[in-house]
Amino acid sequence: MAKFRNVAFAIVLTTAACLGQGGGSGPASTNIPGAEFPRINRDSSVTFRVQAERAQKVRVSLGFGQATCDMVKGADGVWEATTEPLAPGFYYYGISVDGFITIDPGSRTFFAARKEVSGLEVPGTESEFFAVKDVPHGAVRTEWYSSKTTGETRRIFVYTPPGYERGPQRYPVLYLQHGYGEDEAGWSDQGHENFILDNLIAGGKAKPMIIVNENGLTGVNFQSPPPSRPGPTPPPSLGVARFFMDERYAALDQIISEDLVPFIDTHYRTIATRDHRALAGLSMGGAQALRIGFHHLDQFAFIGAFSPAIAITDPTKDYDGILANPAKLNQRVRVLWLGIGSEDFLFAPVNDSHEALKKAGIHHVWVESPGAHVWTVWRKYLADFAPRLFQ
Amino acid sequence: MAKFRNVAFAIVLTTAACLGQGGGSGPASTNIPGAEFPRINRDSSVTFRVQAERAQKVRVSLGFGQATCDMVKGADGVWEATTEPLAPGFYYYGISVDGFITIDPGSRTFFAARKEVSGLEVPGTESEFFAVKDVPHGAVRTEWYSSKTTGETRRIFVYTPPGYERGPQRYPVLYLQHGYGEDEAGWSDQGHENFILDNLIAGGKAKPMIIVNENGLTGVNFQSPPPSRPGPTPPPSLGVARFFMDERYAALDQIISEDLVPFIDTHYRTIATRDHRALAGLSMGGAQALRIGFHHLDQFAFIGAFSPAIAITDPTKDYDGILANPAKLNQRVRVLWLGIGSEDFLFAPVNDSHEALKKAGIHHVWVESPGAHVWTVWRKYLADFAPRLFQ
Repeated sequence: MAKFRNVAFAIVLTTAACLGQGGGSGPASTNIPGAEFPRINRDSSVTFRVQAERAQKVRVSLGFGQATCDMVKGADGVWEATTEPLAPGFYYYGISVDGFITIDPGSRTFFAARKEVSGLEVPGTESEFFAVKDVPHGAVRTEWYSSKTTGETRRIFVYTPPGYERGPQRYPVLYLQHGYGEDEAGWSDQGHENFILDNLIAGGKAKPMIIVNENGLTGVNFQSPPPSRPGPTPPPSLGVARFFMDERYAALDQIISEDLVPFIDTHYRTIATRDHRALAGLSMGGAQALRIGFHHLDQFAFIGAFSPAIAITDPTKDYDGILANPAKLNQRVRVLWLGIGSEDFLFAPVNDSHEALKKAGIHHVWVESPGAHVWTVWRKYLADFAPRLFQ
Repeated sequence: MAKFRNVAFAIVLTTAACLGQGGGSGPASTNIPGAEFPRINRDSSVTFRVQAERAQKVRVSLGFGQATCDMVKGADGVWEATTEPLAPGFYYYGISVDGFITIDPGSRTFFAARKEVSGLEVPGTESEFFAVKDVPHGAVRTEWYSSKTTGETRRIFVYTPPGYERGPQRYPVLYLQHGYGEDEAGWSDQGHENFILDNLIAGGKAKPMIIVNENGLTGVNFQSPPPSRPGPTPPPSLGVARFFMDERYAALDQIISEDLVPFIDTHYRTIATRDHRALAGLSMGGAQALRIGFHHLDQFAFIGAFSPAIAITDPTKDYDGILANPAKLNQRVRVLWLGIGSEDFLFAPVNDSHEALKKAGIHHVWVESPGAHVWTVWRKYLADFAPRLFQ
């Protein structure tokens, strides 16, 4: 079992803590240019400040509503709150103005929980592996292609590694999916997949590879706007997680296997064999990676599930019996990677799934790490998974 | 003088108009997936709806505060307003909740006025030229490069035309800059430069070219967060516009001429001559394109200024006297393009600049179009400018 350093996800923002004044060491890297707040203080506490002269009540809420507290209004109409020291990592957050949940004007927005939300990066030594360093950089392409499955022109993101332009080298491909409520931009905007790979490649720790991000919420017809509630909408319950594996998600299977993989192999200099193709994802995307990967072992030899929304109970029957012959599966799947944070609300079913796979003799890398259901964890999982690919 | 069809920018949202009920023909294309509001009605009026049970007063504001009106609260805590029919085009807008200016949760955000704001696309036959059609599509790359001028790793966006991947063809390059308060993502997110070029190229109307977008707010040290006011921050006054041409902006000149052009010519298959290089921009970026272009005629043979923040009064002295020899300048500059909307707050100084250039015998394309200081106009300017390049 791989171990990460102890960086347990801890939101310790309390009403009492909100009363403090920030010492100020600098604006968050996730701020819009020129915005002084939110501000990361020297002790990794964070001071939020918003101007709302006429508001009666202003609150700040971190994560999925785990920590919410009232901000305090100053004489100048500026509301302020300071957290206790926060663990390094990436936090979604929201501001509530007289009950209306919205963004902090000081922050860049990120697409999550099916809406635009504020994001906060608390830096630390933990951030080194995705920092923008003086190493050769790849590019992230926004690309449009035609899907026969949906009849749409679909947007994808494609990371190409440093040196790709020079050619004529061909590369393996990792198909990497986001979670529920996010979209194909998540792995570059929140996940920094490009900088993680740039750094791994520069250090000789991962093979140069292409990464492709599609939108995994295919086939869902939302009938209503996202609910308005304090902070971003919570992640799916396990009941919703099961929904992600059902037939309504067959569209994504077909999109990836019939439309996307052929498009990428035609338009990029790939090595178009199963031994040079991986499929992974986080949360809902992890469930999709397992389902689609197992159904297309002719296309994928590497499968990764980061904090996946799964509940494998009987490997002889789940996934249409594809796991029923462990010896054959172990030969076909070169790496099966499964990881979950110990504070993740999905820990129990994923841990049970791991135990079920182990009991059935299905080889897999198992990572139990500190942390919850957050990007702070998923970035690390990518940094653990990518070096194991295409070796 | 080129003429556009009459699509005068008209915000006709009034308090009276806010009371109507939308008939509903569909969610705006700028909405987040699944959000039913804002909704474009059959008559091109737009219905906004936000949920804010505990708010005392909610307003919606289009553009730069040109049209603001109160929303009406329903029994369910949902506030609503409907505009009169709107001219097709792209509108920035904001929601004010008890005086706090923020985004509409139903809309995607765009970076403008130095913050994240909501955007609304009102479609029409006018939208055809940037529609996502069944034609070959180029890609937009997010790329990072090292700038010696600033010592930073800087982010740029690079459009590569359809077929670029196949090689070995080499392409001309258009360097295209955003306006004040926006950033290097503006020309793809708001401007749809990629779809405009895809369509022009597919129709044989423009030569395949690479487009590069840098961040033009280089060298500015913002000391404070953006002001909080109804709607997005207004564009710069002419006084601010002059500021954009002064020495504090010399950094961008150096970045483009010494760092960016060499990087692009090294990393992309360009035709690295002045006859295959253009520099253009909108508003502040238009002023920068003229200034930097005139100072680097060794690098650029095509210059475009879309609604630029300029005031040329004496071509014999402005731009360090570079325009003082019209015959020589006319020989060097293959296309000098200048355009402004008749309702633009910068119309008078730009029109005066045009007259001054004309009087001095400096050849230029002059476009006076309907419209204000908005993306609706700039997209059309790109579609007019690009076909004139590299012929």
